[in-house]
Amino acid sequence: MLKGNLVFGQSGGPTAVINSSAAGLLSSALASPAIGEVYAAEHGIVGILNDRLFDIRQEDPEELKLLTQTPSSIFGSCRHKLADFDEDDSDYYRILEIFKKHNIRYFFYNGGNDTMDTCHKISQFMQREDYECRVVGIPKTIDNDLCGTDHCPGFGSAAKYVATSFMEVKLDSQVYNYPQIIIVEVMGRHAGWLAAASVLAAHKGAGPDLIYLPERAFTLEQFERDVRAVYEEKGDVMVCVSEGCHDENGRFIPEMFADNNLQTDAFGHKQLGGAADMLASFVKDKFGVKVRAIEFSLLQRCAAHIASPIDVKEAYAAGETALEYALEGHSDFMIGFERVSDDPYEIKMIRVPLEACANLEKTLPDEWINEAGNFVLQPFIDYSLPLIQGATERSEEDGLPHFAELKKVLVD
Amino acid sequence: MLKGNLVFGQSGGPTAVINSSAAGLLSSALASPAIGEVYAAEHGIVGILNDRLFDIRQEDPEELKLLTQTPSSIFGSCRHKLADFDEDDSDYYRILEIFKKHNIRYFFYNGGNDTMDTCHKISQFMQREDYECRVVGIPKTIDNDLCGTDHCPGFGSAAKYVATSFMEVKLDSQVYNYPQIIIVEVMGRHAGWLAAASVLAAHKGAGPDLIYLPERAFTLEQFERDVRAVYEEKGDVMVCVSEGCHDENGRFIPEMFADNNLQTDAFGHKQLGGAADMLASFVKDKFGVKVRAIEFSLLQRCAAHIASPIDVKEAYAAGETALEYALEGHSDFMIGFERVSDDPYEIKMIRVPLEACANLEKTLPDEWINEAGNFVLQPFIDYSLPLIQGATERSEEDGLPHFAELKKVLVD
Repeated sequence: MLKGNLVFGQSGGPTAVINSSAAGLLSSALASPAIGEVYAAEHGIVGILNDRLFDIRQEDPEELKLLTQTPSSIFGSCRHKLADFDEDDSDYYRILEIFKKHNIRYFFYNGGNDTMDTCHKISQFMQREDYECRVVGIPKTIDNDLCGTDHCPGFGSAAKYVATSFMEVKLDSQVYNYPQIIIVEVMGRHAGWLAAASVLAAHKGAGPDLIYLPERAFTLEQFERDVRAVYEEKGDVMVCVSEGCHDENGRFIPEMFADNNLQTDAFGHKQLGGAADMLASFVKDKFGVKVRAIEFSLLQRCAAHIASPIDVKEAYAAGETALEYALEGHSDFMIGFERVSDDPYEIKMIRVPLEACANLEKTLPDEWINEAGNFVLQPFIDYSLPLIQGATERSEEDGLPHFAELKKVLVD
Repeated sequence: MLKGNLVFGQSGGPTAVINSSAAGLLSSALASPAIGEVYAAEHGIVGILNDRLFDIRQEDPEELKLLTQTPSSIFGSCRHKLADFDEDDSDYYRILEIFKKHNIRYFFYNGGNDTMDTCHKISQFMQREDYECRVVGIPKTIDNDLCGTDHCPGFGSAAKYVATSFMEVKLDSQVYNYPQIIIVEVMGRHAGWLAAASVLAAHKGAGPDLIYLPERAFTLEQFERDVRAVYEEKGDVMVCVSEGCHDENGRFIPEMFADNNLQTDAFGHKQLGGAADMLASFVKDKFGVKVRAIEFSLLQRCAAHIASPIDVKEAYAAGETALEYALEGHSDFMIGFERVSDDPYEIKMIRVPLEACANLEKTLPDEWINEAGNFVLQPFIDYSLPLIQGATERSEEDGLPHFAELKKVLVD
């Protein structure tokens, strides 16, 4: 069995349960005879490049347990893009230098498809340099768009938040005796999984009338027609729109209105958000009724107070199992979930080759979306309902969330 | 004991627990020998004017119990303003006609200060016309700005939502290795109680750096200075701003920027919202860093999934006690809470004369706000912490909220 030290990092946008994966992995690692030191990198790969590693053996085990109810990325995240090492290998040599310095033989990176790409590149480089190191990806993303896995840790909790909030807002929006149009924007850059979760609210009789996903081309013409049809039939209209909706030329909704130049991040992704606001102004002009735009914003990815207990457990198990597989000698893979059965719900953990998920995006199957492209069908409900079951388990302090407090002692 | 029928109505903006007051009142009324028929008006006073009353005896008692975990106003609300009856008594004679038609001898109206005004006017009119009818106000408002009561049902739940969400967003906003400014907008037209609740998050180490309330004049100059000071010290800045913040001339934040004409409702209130967005653009121009605006919007008043159990119980008891007092012969009052002790927390229910609370607004005591007018002090924490204690008690169905479903059978 390969002996040596371990480093763990978090990357990309936080979720309500990414720290639960950290808890699963780190607790197992602390108990494993094969693992010497257990480190977490500050701000993911950036912390490795800067040699800023936290010594997890210094932490109070009770606080590590609280990670299962602490949202966001406790060790910090980053959006640092590694170049291809054929083009520029300076970052890679720096990583190798740090790995050697600390005798890192186990590297676990927790994130989405960009992260799996980084993971895969590092794995390949270490192989090329003949440095023995197990490199493992642990999935997380509220977007649920990673390939090779039935679903991603983080999605179930975000879906529970989205469906619950839609139900609550629907009730709130119906109280007055005049027509109202509500447009709610949900995250999801390339895939509509999370926006689709609003159909769970509709399934319970208190959800959106229209759901728009990035999987189908969005046009203002169709949108206006759809809203008008519901408005004429029911008076009230509730719309769910994915932030990633775009027309057939790839123009996002805010870009369909003048003077909107979206900024881009290190990965070339445009900064989204604001679609609901734009559509609300558009509709207000056309219909002259009360219109309200709501953006779930960061709330949908950090609402640990309504985390799905199944999601919390699976995220934890993903961390644990990642270590198990690595100790067995596997490397260059991401933990994936394979669904064994819907009812009773059962999954098993599998290994997905990193090259099979790096940079790829899994979108909603076409047949899960209605023909008009403005609603989601039963197969999605069957798929997602098992992922949100159960009441959230968490302890409170003074009526407020009880988050983990780590010492974060830097390694010399 | 006055025998006759009862009508209940809901008014103003919904809360997470207004239906809990309905459950308390209606369940007691159904069990009372003095009360004949038990009705609820559709859309509050508008339903009385239109003779649209629901027969509560037709409802399943199990569904009525579920009202304690169902947010929003189940019978519908309104923002209808009654004229002074000295000026125009047509609405009043219509109400009297309906009351006589249905032998209504008990009228309960659940709402905020506008509602208490309506209640008081109806009470006075019935007295003038010598029609014996007990008229009782039941308080509710997330704004917590009713006079004569220590606090209002609805506030505790909204405060728990606000403080929890600030904590979660704070963690989320700290993950990246670059500076960020987050501006969160919280409801509260005339008083800063709910925005002040964000200090509970700060008290737990994960809250805003700056809190702006309508109680103090707001200027863009001071705002910029304050944000800069925090930014220079810490890099990250988190701001809580009440939607009701305004300058010393009464101009709301959106009105401080060009081309903003706020619309007004029936009570002459301007439609608020959008302050965080405006301030975010302002700050982005000045600081050139990543800025994010978040508006809790309707979520903060309908999030029954994180309702304060104390709030739910008190709202229920307010409904029950309102009936008790009315059966004892009292009228023309609002139920109020008098705080007996902070630790252990204890309140008693009192009667507040309607004229002592109609149209009046209770703001935060000046000494609970810091001198600079940009933060909230310990006395507010001592006041509000007892109101958010305990984990939310509710049942789920399929992992989602289990809301009451009423038949709403109209009376002939």
